[in-house]
Amino acid sequence: MKFRCRKDEFNNGINIAMKAIMGKTTMPALECFLIEAKDDKVYITSNDMQLGIRTLIPAEVEEGGIVLMNARNLSGVISKMLDDRIEFESDDNSTIMIFGGNRRHEEQGLPDDDFPRLPEIEFSQSVSISQFELKEMIRQTIFSISSKENNKILTGELFEVSGDELRIASLDLIRVSIRKTKLGSEYEKVKVVIPGKTLNEISKVMSNDADDMVDIYFSKNHVKFEFGDTVMISRLIEGNFFNIDQMLKNNYETKVTVNKNVFFNCIDSSTLYIRETDKNPVIFTMTDDNMKVEIKSSNSSMNEDVPITKEGKDLKIGLNPKYIMDVLKVIDDEDVNLYFFNANSPCFIKNEGESYIYLILPINI
Amino acid sequence: MKFRCRKDEFNNGINIAMKAIMGKTTMPALECFLIEAKDDKVYITSNDMQLGIRTLIPAEVEEGGIVLMNARNLSGVISKMLDDRIEFESDDNSTIMIFGGNRRHEEQGLPDDDFPRLPEIEFSQSVSISQFELKEMIRQTIFSISSKENNKILTGELFEVSGDELRIASLDLIRVSIRKTKLGSEYEKVKVVIPGKTLNEISKVMSNDADDMVDIYFSKNHVKFEFGDTVMISRLIEGNFFNIDQMLKNNYETKVTVNKNVFFNCIDSSTLYIRETDKNPVIFTMTDDNMKVEIKSSNSSMNEDVPITKEGKDLKIGLNPKYIMDVLKVIDDEDVNLYFFNANSPCFIKNEGESYIYLILPINI
Repeated sequence: MKFRCRKDEFNNGINIAMKAIMGKTTMPALECFLIEAKDDKVYITSNDMQLGIRTLIPAEVEEGGIVLMNARNLSGVISKMLDDRIEFESDDNSTIMIFGGNRRHEEQGLPDDDFPRLPEIEFSQSVSISQFELKEMIRQTIFSISSKENNKILTGELFEVSGDELRIASLDLIRVSIRKTKLGSEYEKVKVVIPGKTLNEISKVMSNDADDMVDIYFSKNHVKFEFGDTVMISRLIEGNFFNIDQMLKNNYETKVTVNKNVFFNCIDSSTLYIRETDKNPVIFTMTDDNMKVEIKSSNSSMNEDVPITKEGKDLKIGLNPKYIMDVLKVIDDEDVNLYFFNANSPCFIKNEGESYIYLILPINI
Repeated sequence: MKFRCRKDEFNNGINIAMKAIMGKTTMPALECFLIEAKDDKVYITSNDMQLGIRTLIPAEVEEGGIVLMNARNLSGVISKMLDDRIEFESDDNSTIMIFGGNRRHEEQGLPDDDFPRLPEIEFSQSVSISQFELKEMIRQTIFSISSKENNKILTGELFEVSGDELRIASLDLIRVSIRKTKLGSEYEKVKVVIPGKTLNEISKVMSNDADDMVDIYFSKNHVKFEFGDTVMISRLIEGNFFNIDQMLKNNYETKVTVNKNVFFNCIDSSTLYIRETDKNPVIFTMTDDNMKVEIKSSNSSMNEDVPITKEGKDLKIGLNPKYIMDVLKVIDDEDVNLYFFNANSPCFIKNEGESYIYLILPINI
């Protein structure tokens, strides 16, 4: 194999494919990129057995071929090159040579036999959405997936297509995060659970330009994201997700509107006195125009009066400050609305159109 | 005690005094600031038993007094305040109240009895130098102090005043780093070893403005740095430092001049293939106008031709790439000069005026 390409384009492809490279493993092939040159195209493929990535880099192919090279070594070699033109060569013994300027790297690669190829799957329908919007929806929900592997389904996010609506949700049994958006067209129903890790990695490589689209293909056990010159295929998590609609009863007795930044700063400051081991709630006492925020620990306390707009009954409720901050961090609105039924029912944070809905269980006080 | 002050000025004082606050200890007083209000001045003092700091913050003192407060708590409380005006109060039971805007923090402080006061020492002479220059000199030498506590003297830096010259040096038995500068006046001889940790912390709080001066006072066992509203007192390391002058023999058979950035990038790239456990040297072969840089590991290799200007004999020598990079990182010159005697003698990196001299022992090849 022999090809020439631009350093920045090679680098870009490497950075994308790196998202499906494992840390230290006992299978050297899983720490490698499959590099393949054919028909004047160069593909870089990676596969960590859950997520697989294939991306294309523009190149001038002089001789086709295929080889496995350690991904971190390739990334290091290319990123440190000072010259903009790179030449990549491998011979029949999988010896790899990389040239740039006066520099020559040589490394023993591996034959491609051991590499787990991306699965060939028939996908039914695809849904098209802006990459930026999908990234935002993931960012605004992924913080409440569970990190505990003993309830596997909660380590993923629900992706639900219904008519022209896409809904993404995650939950960890104490809180729920939901984002909804309108799609451009009507689609058949889909309901799958995508691993959180997949969504994290995909978010890192998708574009910030709202006009760049991604096509999402679904099959029984896999999901495929296609955008630009890149394909990412992930396994789905099997099993039934919790019934979210059942949790979203809309009754409330108290509605509070508060400036997001002031509210965030207040709660952030209250957590100074909370060690992870104490589980002291922050106590909110809502009366007309005022929310008293209080927290006590063994030898300290903090309180603050935060101005609010209130509709409905007065209320006193205890909430975990970390969970509220997690939500406030991802909301872009200047003011947020909190809805309460009573001190034992969940607090809802949502906007008028319900494009986002967050639910947090209270703590008994 | 009761005083009012500006948030930013309080914060600034806290950040300075924080440099002598211990991590977790069994003595709560060592995790505390001593906060003292008297004569319309507020002092914050910290002491980790090696380094002690006292800094002054502008304040309006309503009632004098003294109290100990956990340093990290105070830092958190003040830095998160939204209001610019802070009010600080403590009562006879060492209960502390801090007010800002609508927020009120309360914390149980400690009486000041347990706090280790800064030592009262008579210092002989002081040396005056620009804060920025001192910072630079520390940055350019501190990387080669030893981290091994079993040879305590090497965990510090030599500060040597002789006539109108200040010389700072560190060494770890494989390499030596030296910086020299002219002082404005003539001083009596001083030769002390200051702990590396002290120099690190001092560097973090000194000004980047070349016109701001620091006065350095020496005694038998302590050094004191005075600058702005801050005093830092550190213990010295006892013992005799190595005789550096003996190592600085000036004979050389080969002198090489090379572009620093090109050289750095080349060595940086060569280290991709070196795991910490291999101790492969980088091999430099210097001929007219060219330095071949080569490195080999079990299944890879790299080589590059780097353009140089050479005076004297051709030479082949092995060097530890990390040590060369450490030096190149702190040199600001565009080109660097390397001096060699033979393959078994140290490599010197220095400028014409010898305001910096670095010495690195070679590796046998």
